Amino acid sequence: MRSCFSSFNQRYFCKNTGHIILNPVVVQSTTRFAEPGFAMMLSPLKELLREYRMVLASTSAQRKAIWQQMGINFSALPSSFDEESVQQTAFKTPSDYVCYLANGKASAVVQKLKDERNTGRSIVVGADTVIVAETGIIGKPHTKDKAMETLGYLSGKTHRVITGVAIIVSGDTGVSFDDSFVSTTEVVFSSLSKELIQSYVETGEPLNKAGAYGIQGLGSRLVESITGDYYNVVGFPINQFCERLEALLRTNST
Amino acid sequence: MRSCFSSFNQRYFCKNTGHIILNPVVVQSTTRFAEPGFAMMLSPLKELLREYRMVLASTSAQRKAIWQQMGINFSALPSSFDEESVQQTAFKTPSDYVCYLANGKASAVVQKLKDERNTGRSIVVGADTVIVAETGIIGKPHTKDKAMETLGYLSGKTHRVITGVAIIVSGDTGVSFDDSFVSTTEVVFSSLSKELIQSYVETGEPLNKAGAYGIQGLGSRLVESITGDYYNVVGFPINQFCERLEALLRTNST
Repeated sequence: MRSCFSSFNQRYFCKNTGHIILNPVVVQSTTRFAEPGFAMMLSPLKELLREYRMVLASTSAQRKAIWQQMGINFSALPSSFDEESVQQTAFKTPSDYVCYLANGKASAVVQKLKDERNTGRSIVVGADTVIVAETGIIGKPHTKDKAMETLGYLSGKTHRVITGVAIIVSGDTGVSFDDSFVSTTEVVFSSLSKELIQSYVETGEPLNKAGAYGIQGLGSRLVESITGDYYNVVGFPINQFCERLEALLRTNST
Repeated sequence: MRSCFSSFNQRYFCKNTGHIILNPVVVQSTTRFAEPGFAMMLSPLKELLREYRMVLASTSAQRKAIWQQMGINFSALPSSFDEESVQQTAFKTPSDYVCYLANGKASAVVQKLKDERNTGRSIVVGADTVIVAETGIIGKPHTKDKAMETLGYLSGKTHRVITGVAIIVSGDTGVSFDDSFVSTTEVVFSSLSKELIQSYVETGEPLNKAGAYGIQGLGSRLVESITGDYYNVVGFPINQFCERLEALLRTNST
């Protein structure tokens, strides 16, 4: 979806594209950061992150909820990265594609901070999630008819949810080091009756969601089992992220 | 855990046992039911349940949250069933054990409704969840030392989460029909450092939780992957429950 802001399951009216997207985000000309706190965050990341501002390059409600659940003190900033200009077909695999998008989103926010002369250490994180079935990447439905079609196709089948995550750690003098990874979760759908699909689509939940469902909402009714990280299906693989971030900071600590 | 009320991850002071349990529940001498609504519940269950009062024979905050997420209009009632009097060793498998407990919890609430002369159609659901590792069933830790020990043992290993669910459908003249089933999810823990475990235990989240973690909270940091239903790990396998309940009502509809 082309958007003036990077978005994932958001809904507001975008003047550039005319799309309806959730939760309006007011972009301030100068970014303000949340105060440090890390009240509930677990050690040792709590100590390793003490010197950094954490920035989520996404306004996805799901991703923000996962970061909040982990006690991360962060600012969520929309990325100006133009996803629509990136052709899926230019990549060998969906994993390469989501990794590129995650890096693009994070890099755009890093650049924005530089332009605003926001100094100090920061960790900017970008992410992108796609659903992959036999036929390839399944897009986000923007109409009820398309949502019906997507859910009918996924019914009784197994698909993969792939999230790419990019981490860019900036020191006082620019980019210091980075890392990126991909997390894959297999999801098995129950066989869904037309009545069930129609009822689910009528709630509006499937619209603008990758794969036309939200496993964290009413969509939990549809999912028989998963193999992998549940939070990856929601939109952000938190366990692997914490492991990678901890290793990255330990390896590069001075 | 012996308790004057059936409880799962609750905390209040029980005068019979001295245990500290979460969320006090006031038991009324005459049970009052929620008004029917099913605003967000999906079809066809929405229509099949129109004639029934839904009763969750549990005061677990997690189970109540899952039912609310599914749009089920229900009353949560504590069960007087005495879990502590049931010996695990009397059962061939953990599955047999949780099924027995789930049935016991549901049956006690059905009896309570009868005693109170609560007439009308109702569906009473009991559930019990255990964690099973190589050494057998892992209990709920009531002290921080025990939580440290449990998490240290589960670190880097795979364990199983098993939930038994019992459904008792009552007509106007008593028990009409019932069903029960077991859901199993495999959970793989990351290798946890002592620092991480200690930090997690200090938050208090592991106390009185099966396996000493909550996958829906900070415990998500610990879980590398799962195979099966995520909501089963939280405490209630909602997908299989909806499938079984729908089949049960269709088979026995008059």
